[in-house]
Amino acid sequence: MNAEAHDPAAARDAVKDADRKHVFHSWSAQELIDPLAVAGAEGSYFWDYDGNRYLDFSSALVYTNIGYQHPKVTAAVQEQAARLCTVAPGFAVDVRSEAARLIAERTPGDLDKIFFTNAGAEAVENAVRMARLHTGRPKVLSTYRSYHGATSTAINLTGDARRFGNDTATAGVVHFWGPFAYRSPFYAATEAEECERALRHLEDTIVFEGPQSIAAVILETVGGAPGVLVPPAGYLPGVRELCDRHGIVLILDEVMVGFGRTGTWFAAEHWDVVPDLLCFAKGVTSGYVPLGGVAISPAIAETFARRPYPGGLTYSGHVLACAAAVATINVMAEEDIVGRSARTGAELLGPGLRALAERHPSVGEVRGLGTFWALELVRDAATREPLVPYNASGADNAPMAAFGAACRKGGLWPLLAGNRVHVAPPCNIEAPDVAKGLEILDEALSVADAHMR
Amino acid sequence: MNAEAHDPAAARDAVKDADRKHVFHSWSAQELIDPLAVAGAEGSYFWDYDGNRYLDFSSALVYTNIGYQHPKVTAAVQEQAARLCTVAPGFAVDVRSEAARLIAERTPGDLDKIFFTNAGAEAVENAVRMARLHTGRPKVLSTYRSYHGATSTAINLTGDARRFGNDTATAGVVHFWGPFAYRSPFYAATEAEECERALRHLEDTIVFEGPQSIAAVILETVGGAPGVLVPPAGYLPGVRELCDRHGIVLILDEVMVGFGRTGTWFAAEHWDVVPDLLCFAKGVTSGYVPLGGVAISPAIAETFARRPYPGGLTYSGHVLACAAAVATINVMAEEDIVGRSARTGAELLGPGLRALAERHPSVGEVRGLGTFWALELVRDAATREPLVPYNASGADNAPMAAFGAACRKGGLWPLLAGNRVHVAPPCNIEAPDVAKGLEILDEALSVADAHMR
Repeated sequence: MNAEAHDPAAARDAVKDADRKHVFHSWSAQELIDPLAVAGAEGSYFWDYDGNRYLDFSSALVYTNIGYQHPKVTAAVQEQAARLCTVAPGFAVDVRSEAARLIAERTPGDLDKIFFTNAGAEAVENAVRMARLHTGRPKVLSTYRSYHGATSTAINLTGDARRFGNDTATAGVVHFWGPFAYRSPFYAATEAEECERALRHLEDTIVFEGPQSIAAVILETVGGAPGVLVPPAGYLPGVRELCDRHGIVLILDEVMVGFGRTGTWFAAEHWDVVPDLLCFAKGVTSGYVPLGGVAISPAIAETFARRPYPGGLTYSGHVLACAAAVATINVMAEEDIVGRSARTGAELLGPGLRALAERHPSVGEVRGLGTFWALELVRDAATREPLVPYNASGADNAPMAAFGAACRKGGLWPLLAGNRVHVAPPCNIEAPDVAKGLEILDEALSVADAHMR
Repeated sequence: MNAEAHDPAAARDAVKDADRKHVFHSWSAQELIDPLAVAGAEGSYFWDYDGNRYLDFSSALVYTNIGYQHPKVTAAVQEQAARLCTVAPGFAVDVRSEAARLIAERTPGDLDKIFFTNAGAEAVENAVRMARLHTGRPKVLSTYRSYHGATSTAINLTGDARRFGNDTATAGVVHFWGPFAYRSPFYAATEAEECERALRHLEDTIVFEGPQSIAAVILETVGGAPGVLVPPAGYLPGVRELCDRHGIVLILDEVMVGFGRTGTWFAAEHWDVVPDLLCFAKGVTSGYVPLGGVAISPAIAETFARRPYPGGLTYSGHVLACAAAVATINVMAEEDIVGRSARTGAELLGPGLRALAERHPSVGEVRGLGTFWALELVRDAATREPLVPYNASGADNAPMAAFGAACRKGGLWPLLAGNRVHVAPPCNIEAPDVAKGLEILDEALSVADAHMR
């Protein structure tokens, strides 16, 4: 592409032309999309070929926790590429051992064995396989408001609309309702009541499904794609207790919230809960090289101590990916990126977003932790009617599309999900960039306000 | 690990200690394995911390098609790491566009849209999803002697013993028998008869399952893990015709055999067959960065032109991985690695392995193409009784374990599968290394001979 380096418009056209001819994109009607050609990225920003820079309040897809192109991590990837990119998964390798050790050191409680995968969906697939074989039971319970990945078991566990069109593939999945005080499925008046009723609903579901048939309950510790659903204080300890009482494996999916997103290494720390299996991906390498995995309790590891675990993959513990994980975790520790995420949430994002809510009637609720927030946009503050219907597209989605366009026009790349804007910048975003992002959101929210009844 | 750099034994112990404490390995009883600590690799060799070098006749897990640490590809990974490791999948990016273009240029026939995944299992998952949605039919047919990956749909399509313990997860999978002249399921006397009977068996299975219920037939173009099963000449064209006649999607799984392994870019070229969907992974980057994908026919792409494709993943078209693919494909083209694979097979490996079979009665059959071969080891040449039973472990597997130990003692890392040794060195292996590998196999086969009846 050297010839085009001097002519950005020609470079852009070449990139887009080949994309439209040859790249089939995720979750899309291929002829109805017009992908932006991205030329580069650094820190909390990326830019296109036309001189537009975007402040990335989506962290790509909530994974560039240390921002784009952190020089220490790109240097580590370069060094490892020169030294050794890959060997087969059956061997012991320095960076694989070290990545596992660093992760195990940080996962909650006694989780200390790491099964590496390529990314989050395979982490969920393997956690479910481990739970089924450990318990000898078939069913897995997950919530309606959830996303767990797009391979067969993962997409069937998923509760959001991305499951639609994928319903034929697996058996043994049961969906229940988690707590969500703002849109309570349980007609609760307070957080405490929501918590109590959500636990009773789960217990009733377990009893009526038959505890002896249930291998696992899988939950996102903080629901990500479904709307930054921070559980009420007693919920996860209550689920843990229910699982213990019935011999059910508790799987926490921390693919999106692990590695600093909520201001702790893992979100489970906020509620002092230790799952039996914990799924991670995304933040473990900030996405510089694909990596995911499952952290495993001693009891479940023991099940596969002398009996072969019937799962695996070519790139389990990929060497270059493990080097990226080691560098990412070390950078996060050295630069206190987890602490910065917590402080950014408590001191800047939380107060700033709540101030926006005061000024904009279309913001029905602000919720979040660390660098992970959501604004619930509504057409009517009293009824809480969402700004757009569930799973809207086309004209139905026009208000959110207009809001997104206003953000991008202002130089902010937003993460839109249904009637919400999620606010998930890099965990190490600088304070002036938080302020700038809040200003752009402020302007764009006027567009949302204009679509209210 | 700098302190340990001067003391290889201490470095080895540290790597192994952390591995045993924290790494949970694929397909293994965790306490019954003793992973070799690998210190480095280059070309067709890797080495441990004790000064042992191994000639890798397994190409890791049949994926380092250009060998370890090819300097042009590691340099490309380094350059890309410095420039841009990742952006979200929804954008157009130069190396993603270029990787898709280079792959589409090489895939058979009119396959020209590429959906990128992290690796092979997800490629299979997505191919099956596309086939089901394109046809509106639920069932997928695959062979008993096959391996398609370890996520839910992929492992259920798999025909080998790795499926055991994973049988609960998916519906809609039907297994049938493919052609295998040496152990004919159809009592055929010749290759031509095997082909004809295998096609009749598939047709009967289609008719009795109901063609209107069958979305796809998925086949490894050359069966990989089940034993380098090269189909008879008319088989794949016959399957193509059956699929056409019944409106069934033909998926070819070229995860293991794509990108030069059989002496062509894709194995389908040997039989001039164009599938509707083609799965790839492994060789596309030689495993330097994880990448896989599906090449899609125009008719299937059209199904998702104006209707959203309900599948996706965070790292679809990962930037660093696509840069590795571009470099790998360009290196393969510049150095004619595909042609070298073909010539190595025709001139060195084929004749050399057949000469071993002449000398060693335990070699029941030699089969293969390019740099992809299998020796079928038997206890009895007349009855063709396998040297070890199906899915053997422990004492039952002792003869193969002894054979493997002899290979490794000689400095060769073999790929063992059931009663077979697969011969799959890098596609660009040098002639002296082929000769050396054949010599080591020659010695080790005496161990196999000694275990015959």
